[in-house]
Amino acid sequence: MTCAIVGLGLMGGSFGLAMRGYFDKIVGIDHNKAHQLDAIKLGLVDEIISIDEISKADVIILAIPIRGIISTLKKLSTLDLKEDVTIIDFGSTKESIINECPKNIRKNLVASHPMAGTEYSGPNAAIADLYKNKIMVVCNIDKSGEKQVKTAFDIFNHLEMKIKVMDAKEHDRHAAFISHMPHIVSFSIANAVLNQEDKEHIVTLAAGGFRDMSRLAKSNPDMWRDIFKENKQNLLDSIDAFKEELDKAKKLIENEKWEELRDWMAKGNELHKIM
Amino acid sequence: MTCAIVGLGLMGGSFGLAMRGYFDKIVGIDHNKAHQLDAIKLGLVDEIISIDEISKADVIILAIPIRGIISTLKKLSTLDLKEDVTIIDFGSTKESIINECPKNIRKNLVASHPMAGTEYSGPNAAIADLYKNKIMVVCNIDKSGEKQVKTAFDIFNHLEMKIKVMDAKEHDRHAAFISHMPHIVSFSIANAVLNQEDKEHIVTLAAGGFRDMSRLAKSNPDMWRDIFKENKQNLLDSIDAFKEELDKAKKLIENEKWEELRDWMAKGNELHKIM
Repeated sequence: MTCAIVGLGLMGGSFGLAMRGYFDKIVGIDHNKAHQLDAIKLGLVDEIISIDEISKADVIILAIPIRGIISTLKKLSTLDLKEDVTIIDFGSTKESIINECPKNIRKNLVASHPMAGTEYSGPNAAIADLYKNKIMVVCNIDKSGEKQVKTAFDIFNHLEMKIKVMDAKEHDRHAAFISHMPHIVSFSIANAVLNQEDKEHIVTLAAGGFRDMSRLAKSNPDMWRDIFKENKQNLLDSIDAFKEELDKAKKLIENEKWEELRDWMAKGNELHKIM
Repeated sequence: MTCAIVGLGLMGGSFGLAMRGYFDKIVGIDHNKAHQLDAIKLGLVDEIISIDEISKADVIILAIPIRGIISTLKKLSTLDLKEDVTIIDFGSTKESIINECPKNIRKNLVASHPMAGTEYSGPNAAIADLYKNKIMVVCNIDKSGEKQVKTAFDIFNHLEMKIKVMDAKEHDRHAAFISHMPHIVSFSIANAVLNQEDKEHIVTLAAGGFRDMSRLAKSNPDMWRDIFKENKQNLLDSIDAFKEELDKAKKLIENEKWEELRDWMAKGNELHKIM
């Protein structure tokens, strides 16, 4: 089996590293010349090809931003692909990708979202165990071919991932709460501190808690702009749900309702019982 | 030298573990019977004493909540302590402690705040390397005795901590930004998710980013109520600074100002250059 990885950054590159030996050959596609060279140098893929040479692939991984995934799916639908090819996308939101996938290759697509990543990007950020023990969400599999679902699940199992099947709408809503809103919050903390005159002094006190809360603010702004764009309404809903709690806490502090504030925190403690 | 640790929880217990061998004897005081037994069993201190027996100590560590520190300082000021005793408090805010310290023992007090901790509490949470390589803020040392400052700094150096001398007012403001506001934010995230009908489903998607952002919401509500109470105005100011950024981002998302949102995130990236 030949696997083609489109996008040789953190996600695609880590996939290549983790799947060494599983495929007869792993080829890579990336419009960035430097990424191509790095991917070969780092052994993420065996060779670099152009998108027009992708027709020999048995498995195609789309590890690029959501709009890139959609335009690549449109391009793929015009190529002479193998009949049974399995196309797996790693897009961070799922509804728009599934809705815009051309009908003639819909059965080939297994729409997936690995709940894995780091705050770093590019081929040099690739690590072999990025996916290990992480969750792979797979959406709307009733519209994917049986063979393709099996091929994809075999791959995810080889990566030692936990597979969760989910509706795309539900996934996008959950992703807003679990990932997208927390990114906005982390960037807000970072910018709030940066706005202070004595910011350098403030950060000298930073310990583990602050490092955790500001880590997501290291993330790539271009990538996250695109994700937020795709998931606008869910993101706004989750920000509102967050703000409601923040405002509740702020009012309790202003009004010195200390016991109610304590109870509000005790309620928050419960989260870790269900996680 | 004899050291007495008042409060045998995470902070006091970890101090005892880390300072084994440095003092001739480490004694402990805790009003909680179970904590007393655990502290002996875990070897955090050599023996348990009552507060009235504290007069033999050369060094007294106050590792209890802020109000407890203030009432203990008042009690200590009435006891027949050693003339040169060094009293070190680990309170999370510093201004009220310094302001309320009785005059007759003000020179004995070295008001300190270790920027260290975990989300856990109690003697069983104590770890020997909690303080290692962390920052110890020491406030208003011009009002502490020279000998006491030297004794405290020797101890902090033995713990391999980085000492930062700071004004108490400034410390309390910075602590709001670096620690107190991020706690309120983390609890707000936890409660926002817990309010969702499908909370169990949502958290199945939790990956590293969400775990980081919700970790502080495991913290002890009683302890944090007391800290917030002591630092009310700074906390409200830092929440407002945070909210301003959150509202800015929300407006950019609502109005689909994607490039401005990107730039806002790129600005947030800068934080890690000064940290």
